[in-house]
Amino acid sequence: MGCGVAHKLIESHLVEGEAVPGTVIGLRVDQTLTQDATGTLVMQELEALGLDRTRAEVSVQYVDHNLLQADEKNAEDHAFLHSAARRYGLWYSKPGNGVSHPTHMQRFGVPGKTLAGSDSHTCAAGSLGMLAIGVGGLEVAMAVAGRPLHLRMPEVWGVRLTGALPPWTSAKDVILEMLRRHGVKGGLNRIVEYHGPGVATLTAMDRHVIANMGAELGATTTVFPADRAVREFLRAEDREEDFTELLADDGARYDVTEEIDLSAVEPLIARPSSPGDVVPVREAAGTEVDQVVIGSSANPGLRDYAVAAAMVKGRQTDSAVSFDVNPSSRQILSDLTRIGATLDLVAAGARIHQAGCLGCIGMGQALAPGRNSLRTFPRNFPGRSGTEEDAVWLCSPETAAAAALTGVITDPRDLAAELGLEYPRLEPPARASVNTAMLVPPLPPEEARRVELVKGPNISALPDFPPLPDRIEAPVLLKVGDNVSTDEISPAGARALPYRSNVPRLADFTFTRIDPDYPRRARETAGDSGHLVVGGDNYGQGSSREHAAITPRYLGLRAVVAKSFARIHWQNLANFGILALEFTDPADHDRIGAGDVLVLEGLTERLTAGDEVCARDAATGEEYRLRHRLSPDQARAVLAGGRIPLLARELE
Amino acid sequence: MGCGVAHKLIESHLVEGEAVPGTVIGLRVDQTLTQDATGTLVMQELEALGLDRTRAEVSVQYVDHNLLQADEKNAEDHAFLHSAARRYGLWYSKPGNGVSHPTHMQRFGVPGKTLAGSDSHTCAAGSLGMLAIGVGGLEVAMAVAGRPLHLRMPEVWGVRLTGALPPWTSAKDVILEMLRRHGVKGGLNRIVEYHGPGVATLTAMDRHVIANMGAELGATTTVFPADRAVREFLRAEDREEDFTELLADDGARYDVTEEIDLSAVEPLIARPSSPGDVVPVREAAGTEVDQVVIGSSANPGLRDYAVAAAMVKGRQTDSAVSFDVNPSSRQILSDLTRIGATLDLVAAGARIHQAGCLGCIGMGQALAPGRNSLRTFPRNFPGRSGTEEDAVWLCSPETAAAAALTGVITDPRDLAAELGLEYPRLEPPARASVNTAMLVPPLPPEEARRVELVKGPNISALPDFPPLPDRIEAPVLLKVGDNVSTDEISPAGARALPYRSNVPRLADFTFTRIDPDYPRRARETAGDSGHLVVGGDNYGQGSSREHAAITPRYLGLRAVVAKSFARIHWQNLANFGILALEFTDPADHDRIGAGDVLVLEGLTERLTAGDEVCARDAATGEEYRLRHRLSPDQARAVLAGGRIPLLARELE
Repeated sequence: MGCGVAHKLIESHLVEGEAVPGTVIGLRVDQTLTQDATGTLVMQELEALGLDRTRAEVSVQYVDHNLLQADEKNAEDHAFLHSAARRYGLWYSKPGNGVSHPTHMQRFGVPGKTLAGSDSHTCAAGSLGMLAIGVGGLEVAMAVAGRPLHLRMPEVWGVRLTGALPPWTSAKDVILEMLRRHGVKGGLNRIVEYHGPGVATLTAMDRHVIANMGAELGATTTVFPADRAVREFLRAEDREEDFTELLADDGARYDVTEEIDLSAVEPLIARPSSPGDVVPVREAAGTEVDQVVIGSSANPGLRDYAVAAAMVKGRQTDSAVSFDVNPSSRQILSDLTRIGATLDLVAAGARIHQAGCLGCIGMGQALAPGRNSLRTFPRNFPGRSGTEEDAVWLCSPETAAAAALTGVITDPRDLAAELGLEYPRLEPPARASVNTAMLVPPLPPEEARRVELVKGPNISALPDFPPLPDRIEAPVLLKVGDNVSTDEISPAGARALPYRSNVPRLADFTFTRIDPDYPRRARETAGDSGHLVVGGDNYGQGSSREHAAITPRYLGLRAVVAKSFARIHWQNLANFGILALEFTDPADHDRIGAGDVLVLEGLTERLTAGDEVCARDAATGEEYRLRHRLSPDQARAVLAGGRIPLLARELE
Repeated sequence: MGCGVAHKLIESHLVEGEAVPGTVIGLRVDQTLTQDATGTLVMQELEALGLDRTRAEVSVQYVDHNLLQADEKNAEDHAFLHSAARRYGLWYSKPGNGVSHPTHMQRFGVPGKTLAGSDSHTCAAGSLGMLAIGVGGLEVAMAVAGRPLHLRMPEVWGVRLTGALPPWTSAKDVILEMLRRHGVKGGLNRIVEYHGPGVATLTAMDRHVIANMGAELGATTTVFPADRAVREFLRAEDREEDFTELLADDGARYDVTEEIDLSAVEPLIARPSSPGDVVPVREAAGTEVDQVVIGSSANPGLRDYAVAAAMVKGRQTDSAVSFDVNPSSRQILSDLTRIGATLDLVAAGARIHQAGCLGCIGMGQALAPGRNSLRTFPRNFPGRSGTEEDAVWLCSPETAAAAALTGVITDPRDLAAELGLEYPRLEPPARASVNTAMLVPPLPPEEARRVELVKGPNISALPDFPPLPDRIEAPVLLKVGDNVSTDEISPAGARALPYRSNVPRLADFTFTRIDPDYPRRARETAGDSGHLVVGGDNYGQGSSREHAAITPRYLGLRAVVAKSFARIHWQNLANFGILALEFTDPADHDRIGAGDVLVLEGLTERLTAGDEVCARDAATGEEYRLRHRLSPDQARAVLAGGRIPLLARELE
């Protein structure tokens, strides 16, 4: 039986277990990636672990999220991260250098390598034939410390691409087509592997777009082969020597299969407020738009901006629209400027923003309530834009630029017909504006050891969490439905993000998007047993932020009982000592109400011996059968109050 | 006796009084300018006045300050301003079009005209031979309504320029030299008029730099002649037909005189935290720098960026420095891109920000506490950057770029000697990238009347203030020293600015930079008599924001007793019914303490009849002689509780 790219990557990095779906495996991690919004915790964790120097081949700390610097806190974080990068032998990508994912791909990505990153879109590097997985910060800290990455072996979902994209559609429409078909849970416990003749029609950066938003499918990661397009990409980045061919064997078999005829793809758009609510653009045509934003890690390539520039060139964007352009990196801005696209965009009315993540998680360019924003971003969860009553749509640069010109949602094919536009086919430049000066290299070890961490007053220590009690009798403080995202558990946005290094202060934002009173009630219900949360399906979808585990834990959350969990958040819960339990009978979800007090007993034995746990309603005596899916190692971590006390004990 | 430019401008617009220093005059206002941070109040005032349509020749509403959009409030303000511009026949400059001052100069400035603007740097338009005065919002609202602008006729301060600037110095060093000589009060009650042979060596945009920061001297405004350089500027802007020559007569006489030999000017820098604390750059050389920012209305010209670009071209900025470039307008960004400077800046490590005011009043790019930032901005009052413990230095683009390269404060002449740099002499482009598409023109009157104002939930109504009681017995809630700025009275910054349309909420920030407890105490001391504040010299220096009058008034402030007042704030106090009183004997300032209760009696008669007011200490009986300098018209306004109730009564 032929072997696919995903299996080859896993086999070549397998250090524990066997690659059988559903069983726990350990993988060697070659590279690590952290960004500032999650990285400050990772650096605090490295400090707590007493690490001397990274053991990964390459570790990079990016600063791309918190660039607004509306007060001193962002800058304090940057100074702390810079000092930690110097101390631990990491590369440091300065604010303004660019978004981690495209920058990592351009400067560090190597086919055949593994990458663990504390950002859910780390999977974007699958575009180069890497196994790149977004995980919680502590998983990254452990990878930096040379530990293998543990996960349950996913199924491999082979998606065969045929044909070629028609004019006015692009890679974004391919991943939106996947989301249209399968929704935000379609990829849970799966690696998506694209193969087939259609792959060759996509550039490496097109593949980045598709791999990046594999996160929105809930997939563990996405992989593409490392073929000629990857070699061409690396050559343009002045790194052809880093190329290794990595192709699926002929007749490779996949656990699940799918086919997309690229020539049948049409312009698609995700409606507010889920990346999974996808419809053809024509279905939404005519809706008034106040803002159009082009950029982010979901459309970070030169062509994504250049196509938009070609469309608006010599024209004016609608007078009611704010047309925001968010270069994904300084390299892209340089290339755009070199080919004249910057000038075309500005002349057409664009606001050019500094290179970084901009408002992707609410750090700027928030809209007035109820107004529509079309963005090439990856996510549109409610309130994520920074405006509570927001209406964010996700689409391709072609669709975004069309709306910028007309002021209403417009299928770019219809605009082209009206204006007699020819589809701008843009070749990637033979050589990119490679410039590494904003990437500060690691210090030599002796020098690194002399570096003091720079901790401003807003950088708190990590809180200590006590072990899990054997018996919990605690109230359900909150009951939520399906697909609750980490944006709802620990909101991002310009108000909360500055506190990402300050758990006690950040805790005040926990769940407030769903229930503003939760932090107060949680603090009042303190004590050993704390409180519980009941969730639906796909609990904790979205970003990799471990703050979504740490801040509720800080407020006393002991266990979450849900129908199912999103992968990264589930790991984060275990890492910080919160017990994640699934209903054996999902219908039990309806039987428990907020305010019910549940009793869970004999937890030490239950977690160590098997996977069944029983919850009893303290008032009615009704019992609910639950299961944990913790590995023995994870069970030990949960019982110890999290992985840090466990590791700290081991290091003693 | 020959007549200077200032006198010619005044004589040609005088509608009340005589141009005798110290007496009240009324001037016809040809143009008005509002920006978003002050303009939302102006639009609320127009609404309160029941205005139908602007009566000025040109009225422009710019959006340049609040562009971060960290939540929905900035965008709500933009929507409100856009609707108000449509309703009242104003031009609307969209977010991203640029900073009001250079944009107004480029698109609307006309020699010989008067301009009233609700921004203290409105005076920048004096570069074109205009009489451009920064005033409170209500003064602008009245000018929009066709009323004359009232002020006390200032002295005219003739500054004769000879020689030409040596390499590595530029216009910024000229105004810093004025600030070095005279400090932040040197220009109080004066118009600065530059004349002499040195003027011809300065371009119109160089003059903008000097006229802009006349505000920091405390001057009423600054004027330059409209000569060949102005004609060339207007020609490059495609508006040569708007040129009118306006020169001082030979032998023009000035009330005060001064001379600057440009050839003797050297690179200067204002130390933290006053624009008046100026020293030669060499005196501060070697100080470590974390951030360098180029931009703002104080250095908005193409050359200001292009010189920096030429200096860093092919080099790399220091690895510890954040090099922030803040294009003052989309036109400047276009021109910079056209000449290749954008590429040079980005390649050297610049973060290019959206066109606007950026962090000039704390809307982004704040530093970690205690770190040094070198900025080409106009002001460095404490905390204005958004960081409480900030250290902002003000300098020329040449000095800023030198520090960006070396990481320490560096005299650009020394850097040039070390690197063998030749001073980049840059000719202004023969034709600028003129593009008016982001300037939305006024609607025709019939259409305008049908426009509804768009008011989001964060746009409050203006509060009603009752008349001044005849007798005030009230405690001194706060006593402050000299040069208290409006940044300290009503802080800007990313936290407070979103509430600029919401007086009740913004009031919570009043004086908190000096005394965090002031709002609470003030609310507790409510009642008819309210409370008092005692100030030193130059009370209320800085910006034109009338929030610095409205929010303390909202909290119950009835009178400020100070040694002297800054002009715009003094007018704003009268406009909103706060009695501004000066000590006859400045030494009395030391005799009053916070907590003292003062009695002021017979105010109606005292304000109407003369200018003496007596304050008696309720406990000791000690008496203090005070004087108001209110015109009869202003006295009526203060007694009525402010100008709006007065005008509203007149309109009935």
